[in-house]
Amino acid sequence: MLKVAYLGTAYCGWQVQPNGISIEQILNENLSDLFGEDVKVIGASRTDAGVHALGNIAVFDTESRMPGDKVSFALNQRLPEDIVIQGSKEVDPDFHPRHADSVKTYEYRILNTTFDNPLRSAQTCFYYMKLDVNLMRRGAQYLLGEHDFSSFCAPRTQVTDFVRNIFSIDIEREGEEIVIRIKGNGFLYNMVRIIAGTLMEIGRGKIPPEEMKDILEAKDRTAAGPTAPAKGLTLVEIKYTE
Amino acid sequence: MLKVAYLGTAYCGWQVQPNGISIEQILNENLSDLFGEDVKVIGASRTDAGVHALGNIAVFDTESRMPGDKVSFALNQRLPEDIVIQGSKEVDPDFHPRHADSVKTYEYRILNTTFDNPLRSAQTCFYYMKLDVNLMRRGAQYLLGEHDFSSFCAPRTQVTDFVRNIFSIDIEREGEEIVIRIKGNGFLYNMVRIIAGTLMEIGRGKIPPEEMKDILEAKDRTAAGPTAPAKGLTLVEIKYTE
Repeated sequence: MLKVAYLGTAYCGWQVQPNGISIEQILNENLSDLFGEDVKVIGASRTDAGVHALGNIAVFDTESRMPGDKVSFALNQRLPEDIVIQGSKEVDPDFHPRHADSVKTYEYRILNTTFDNPLRSAQTCFYYMKLDVNLMRRGAQYLLGEHDFSSFCAPRTQVTDFVRNIFSIDIEREGEEIVIRIKGNGFLYNMVRIIAGTLMEIGRGKIPPEEMKDILEAKDRTAAGPTAPAKGLTLVEIKYTE
Repeated sequence: MLKVAYLGTAYCGWQVQPNGISIEQILNENLSDLFGEDVKVIGASRTDAGVHALGNIAVFDTESRMPGDKVSFALNQRLPEDIVIQGSKEVDPDFHPRHADSVKTYEYRILNTTFDNPLRSAQTCFYYMKLDVNLMRRGAQYLLGEHDFSSFCAPRTQVTDFVRNIFSIDIEREGEEIVIRIKGNGFLYNMVRIIAGTLMEIGRGKIPPEEMKDILEAKDRTAAGPTAPAKGLTLVEIKYTE
């Protein structure tokens, strides 16, 4: 099992795609080179183009006898500097990172200033209109718990079950940034970015916080706010609970 | 007067150079385009290749009647996303940003973890050996005040006066990062990076903190530690005191 961190800026996302280079492809190529056999990773979260991670999870099968904890160091020697393994260990061959129960933590970072900050622009969404964090918090509370999140799912999806459980949403100011930290048992396609985009509309006073309840109940993507840009989103952690 | 922020990664530094693109050149080109006349900026600090800034200062002459505070917005429309003007105002035509007295604040950021963080690697120096912040603080105190900093100046320089005044050096942990924040009336070529490199040697126990006194008194570059990488350094602020 690999804990994978990456700056998503240069990639077409996690999943192998015909146009563009994916994180999955870079890992497959470098693991195959390292072990001299054909290696294919299975990722826990197929993050979108431009989305970052501090702790995505990937597993793979290998004939190699390299100790699990040494793989991270050997692999980091080969990887480009925008992908860094944060740790590795051997796991049960039956373990599947998408089928096992987990708590996923995402962070969405908004740079809420008059001017963009070039030292932070790769990892934040610049938003110059003043945002009221208290309004955002009031809107976010309606999303807590188990709901059908169809309103917060991009149409392009093969999913049929739109019920997910959000355990917590914390919204804090960190200097010039507003951080939306969401924990849940799973997220639909673009779900965190649509939640962030809707919370920004609430924060600037365009949507009243109470309307979040109606948006959720509408079960219709067009009821919610815009999809916030990918570059503000980071998959922080996946914790397996079983 | 422009307050200029930039991610230095893609640039050969502030100053126009035959090989590579400089911040100065980008500003000259875009200001000349904006005003339809030949504009040349004078920068306060000629930062090195790869060094970042949140608040470098530049001035220029123009025939334009655009109000000073509007220049930042007009110029940001044209600039690449890794250079962002943080504000602009009209100043006295005699003002020279390098001749006026000022307090300059630099930050050197060290990512002191087992694995590099790809979300922070453009703006930090990754250092995996454990650093003792208290040792670094003890070493730093010898540098406070007015001294001849020849030991902390790269040989390639036309400067003849090596005396500078350091007002403060604060060393703090911020999560996984160690931040060295230095304020002074001016800095020699590579001075902050040589101080940071020497403090890292002290922090890992290779040089005793008391030896900083001898290094300073040696007035010899070879007495100090290595020059820390450019990417960890940011010019945070220049405050004019007159």
